[in-house]
Amino acid sequence: MPLDEFTLIYRYFSALGRGEAVDLSVGDDCAILRLAAGERLATSVDTMVEGVHFPAGTFPEDIGFRAVSVAASDLAAMGARPIGMTLALTLPAADELWLHAFSQGLAAAVARYRLPLVGGDTTRGPLTITVQVLGALPVDRALLRGGAAPGDALYVSGCLGDAAAALAVLAGDWRPEPGHVEYLMDRFNRPVARIELGLALLGVASAAIDISDGLLADAGHIADASGVLLRVDPGLLPLSAALLSHPDPDQARRWALTGGDDYELLFCLPAGATAPPGCTRIGRVEPGSGVDCGLDIDIAGGYRHF
Amino acid sequence: MPLDEFTLIYRYFSALGRGEAVDLSVGDDCAILRLAAGERLATSVDTMVEGVHFPAGTFPEDIGFRAVSVAASDLAAMGARPIGMTLALTLPAADELWLHAFSQGLAAAVARYRLPLVGGDTTRGPLTITVQVLGALPVDRALLRGGAAPGDALYVSGCLGDAAAALAVLAGDWRPEPGHVEYLMDRFNRPVARIELGLALLGVASAAIDISDGLLADAGHIADASGVLLRVDPGLLPLSAALLSHPDPDQARRWALTGGDDYELLFCLPAGATAPPGCTRIGRVEPGSGVDCGLDIDIAGGYRHF
Repeated sequence: MPLDEFTLIYRYFSALGRGEAVDLSVGDDCAILRLAAGERLATSVDTMVEGVHFPAGTFPEDIGFRAVSVAASDLAAMGARPIGMTLALTLPAADELWLHAFSQGLAAAVARYRLPLVGGDTTRGPLTITVQVLGALPVDRALLRGGAAPGDALYVSGCLGDAAAALAVLAGDWRPEPGHVEYLMDRFNRPVARIELGLALLGVASAAIDISDGLLADAGHIADASGVLLRVDPGLLPLSAALLSHPDPDQARRWALTGGDDYELLFCLPAGATAPPGCTRIGRVEPGSGVDCGLDIDIAGGYRHF
Repeated sequence: MPLDEFTLIYRYFSALGRGEAVDLSVGDDCAILRLAAGERLATSVDTMVEGVHFPAGTFPEDIGFRAVSVAASDLAAMGARPIGMTLALTLPAADELWLHAFSQGLAAAVARYRLPLVGGDTTRGPLTITVQVLGALPVDRALLRGGAAPGDALYVSGCLGDAAAALAVLAGDWRPEPGHVEYLMDRFNRPVARIELGLALLGVASAAIDISDGLLADAGHIADASGVLLRVDPGLLPLSAALLSHPDPDQARRWALTGGDDYELLFCLPAGATAPPGCTRIGRVEPGSGVDCGLDIDIAGGYRHF
């Protein structure tokens, strides 16, 4: 007997709805959440479509975890504290095995980010996952794109280019050693939103963005919003051991400069500020406009949907 | 030259983002909104898929307006004041004519509900529209499903069954006179979320829900959540002139009892409370469980996606 929509939601998702800011979770017309006194709401939405944002055949656990991470990464980029999320799930069929596995990935993300699932909608159609995240910000602070100033240093968290390299591996274009394959697949399928880093940068960094479209493309957004030039030194880019094992260093560097889906934070620090651990200085902010990495690389290398 | 994602968003949607609760709209990693002191956040999400929630060939203006109304109806059912929304739009192609028309429908809904569009995501894929609404509620009040008590009267706003009748007209199953066709199509394509009514019922009604799945199905949610029996008198159902013109009164009544997509409010009033204008008493709350309309009609008549 087919699962109806309500059974489906309650069986798999309603246990994920508890959180300190949650007054009312799944089960009424709306969820109700509380902000602390002096806080504002930060919100963002991200959609993942099978065959566009992840290959058909991706494990449902990974789809669930990744969909939340991609959306939560926008909270990280604002320095917001996660308080809840909603999920709009369009499914070709109510496949119980698929839903069970998907909900495992969701649950892992809910626990990791303390981001309870407070509402959702389940519809029939081509596999599409939309996650809307809700976060809390102090009333007088946020990590915006528009605050970078000449003299600031440019930093990035983690390593760059891994997700793009993973797609090359999936496409059969590169066969690194098995340990590197595992690492790269994990970086693509299980990206981690830098929530704690965002919170640490709030009130410290002058500008921030998460790298979803590629370093150069996302640096371009900071440059545009701040009215400055971002000068990136390609020799300083943090590369994983996996990328360093690629026979062509230029290819590894291109992935780091233009590959999307890494979900690291790119941020600017005023002189005198100290970068948190795990971050690398990759350049500086200068008067001017745009992004200059000293190489002839198309800055529009970030993924475009149309 | 194809529109890229950013051009598309800015050209069509960014003008819709201003509102009194909006500190930061489209253009950074998150939008930022403010609640007044003593307010909580109400949120809900709804997805519409072409061919499932609306027929292929529906005018894009109507798709835009209806998608917002369907989501905003959940704010109405909670008694929440609209403060903003996000839109996740999956499109097969960036068709400028389609986008222009769609944005006209969105703009009409933004103005009507004072519900600014503060964020979104645009992706390529089968036509799917997900709207997440954000509203403000007093910290100590909300219209929930669970507060109905024996002795309360049961009310509904507007007329019932019009959207179901519209689908029958679209399917060629009924050919009412032209004036009625126009009315019914408008009711299906341009449903109006009962925001003002929800605000008026806050602190007055003991329970409320919006009728999206059909009167009997949604009454069942109130009955379940409140632990009561809802007795509906089919002779009291408010029917439009269009439905009253149907040659078979039983068919019109079935539409009113089981048809979804009307987005009227169903609510319970304690003895002594006065119903707002435009609402009709259709039954009462009794001890017991479930919904009884005195007819042998399958209560699971509401739409099920699986």
